[in-house]
Amino acid sequence: MSLLVVGTVAFDAIETPFGKTDKIVGGAASYIGLAASYFHRDIHLVSVVGDDFPQDFMNTLKAQGVNLTGLQIKKGEKSFFWSGKYHNDLNSRDTLETQLNVLEHFNPIVPESAKNVDFLMLGNLVPAVQRQVITQLTKRPKLIVLDTMNFWMDIAMEELLKTIAMIDVLTINDSEARQLSGEYSLVKAAQKILKMGPKVLVIKKGEHGALLFNKDEVFFAPALPLEEVYDPTGAGDSFAGGFIGYLAKTKDISFENMKRAIIFGSAMASFTVEKFGTERLIGLSAEDVDNRVQEFVDLVQFDISLI
Amino acid sequence: MSLLVVGTVAFDAIETPFGKTDKIVGGAASYIGLAASYFHRDIHLVSVVGDDFPQDFMNTLKAQGVNLTGLQIKKGEKSFFWSGKYHNDLNSRDTLETQLNVLEHFNPIVPESAKNVDFLMLGNLVPAVQRQVITQLTKRPKLIVLDTMNFWMDIAMEELLKTIAMIDVLTINDSEARQLSGEYSLVKAAQKILKMGPKVLVIKKGEHGALLFNKDEVFFAPALPLEEVYDPTGAGDSFAGGFIGYLAKTKDISFENMKRAIIFGSAMASFTVEKFGTERLIGLSAEDVDNRVQEFVDLVQFDISLI
Repeated sequence: MSLLVVGTVAFDAIETPFGKTDKIVGGAASYIGLAASYFHRDIHLVSVVGDDFPQDFMNTLKAQGVNLTGLQIKKGEKSFFWSGKYHNDLNSRDTLETQLNVLEHFNPIVPESAKNVDFLMLGNLVPAVQRQVITQLTKRPKLIVLDTMNFWMDIAMEELLKTIAMIDVLTINDSEARQLSGEYSLVKAAQKILKMGPKVLVIKKGEHGALLFNKDEVFFAPALPLEEVYDPTGAGDSFAGGFIGYLAKTKDISFENMKRAIIFGSAMASFTVEKFGTERLIGLSAEDVDNRVQEFVDLVQFDISLI
Repeated sequence: MSLLVVGTVAFDAIETPFGKTDKIVGGAASYIGLAASYFHRDIHLVSVVGDDFPQDFMNTLKAQGVNLTGLQIKKGEKSFFWSGKYHNDLNSRDTLETQLNVLEHFNPIVPESAKNVDFLMLGNLVPAVQRQVITQLTKRPKLIVLDTMNFWMDIAMEELLKTIAMIDVLTINDSEARQLSGEYSLVKAAQKILKMGPKVLVIKKGEHGALLFNKDEVFFAPALPLEEVYDPTGAGDSFAGGFIGYLAKTKDISFENMKRAIIFGSAMASFTVEKFGTERLIGLSAEDVDNRVQEFVDLVQFDISLI
């Protein structure tokens, strides 16, 4: 079953306590597409770049089974660029520079071949643009997953709420869940957000793992304790890519299967942070992924008899 | 097998975003003793109070199987008193007042009946005083668990390191693990700390769960997502009490059994934070504890086939 990924394909310049990069390839859809491609190879990507964007990386995406028919390349324009610096704890960062460039007038066009997908992953973007994608589809996908961020809650909450009302699974981080709901307790926050439209909420807590909620149940996936985290950029997108890639592969959108999917998502995120940019997501083997998932199993597996 | 618990028995006055208490009963040994008593009933307590301390609470401890022969009651003196105010996130707090009182010249005396215990839990105290307890024992316990805090790292690091060198399991929080090791990565921090003496390290992350490390393995126990956390005071002590209580009950100090023990410890901590002070740790049934542990099992249990 086809998976459509929408989001930025862009340049980042990143500084962390462990080093600094020049302009490297990034963007939500890049991470999502790469992470999903380890599970599922029928992927369409809708995004926009300038003609400064490297053909090499587009070839890499294609080689991973990502169809780029929906990737607009704007002649004479520049790709979206973000530059940021992470603080010592790697949990917070300052944006140093944002150049919208091609993103300023982005009008997503879903190719005919992707208009009847079963799985839709809307990476972080202007909420109205995310909605524009949904309305172009000829049938309602089996599952729509949306990622967003505090920035849109600050400046476009009404638009965001309209978009959220149309989706099935929302992925946000803990402080965003608090902001969106006005509740400090994540349990209360989840119950409020689940009344806004989504049937399932994923709360990403970075190095502290992720929580999966539906109306009646909650599941927790840990993050792997890593010796070195070089660069958190793209971790949330890789998580989302692994999550929806696994669901598209297994064609099972039950809560039980979503539990597995967030473990696979967490595994993909754990790779991403080990190197700068998308580097670690390129050239993994199925065995690499399996071994990583087995580390998650070992991390939380226990066998208990009650007292 | 006997368990000896050493730590403060004291008064607290607590303010959280959810309310405020007058002087109520608290202290590390109070929480540890109560939490451990749900698993094991042969418990000795060594501590000191003034004659202002309520007989009622001592009766409660006794009724839970805690032997108070080692509890010194200082005539004409006042019990240790701490008062603090938690910030909105409940993860940080300000100390408003500390009155050492009887703790200023505390000289712990281990009763004869407790000198050959198999399990020793040293709650947070002056490191030199913790060591004084170990040296009074007639035989080396099977397991010594020690809890401490950043305060001693700030003012008595050398003393603390001497004490840590004598124990088996150290329980500290994540920022303390970073401070003690000088490493930001908890994996690296753990490996450094395990060279200081302890064979096992527990890193408590509050609402983010707890990590259990030995030289070769790591295990993660989540915290239960709770609707309301009223008062985090005593959560770490209740965790330690459940942990060592379960080990004393099962007489098994393998890493596998410690995994179970930190789940039981996490369960006891999850009760404590639901009400102010020790209230929630009094009068639980075995069924209450079992049901709570089952919630932990449900929270992280998944069944996965690799890709």
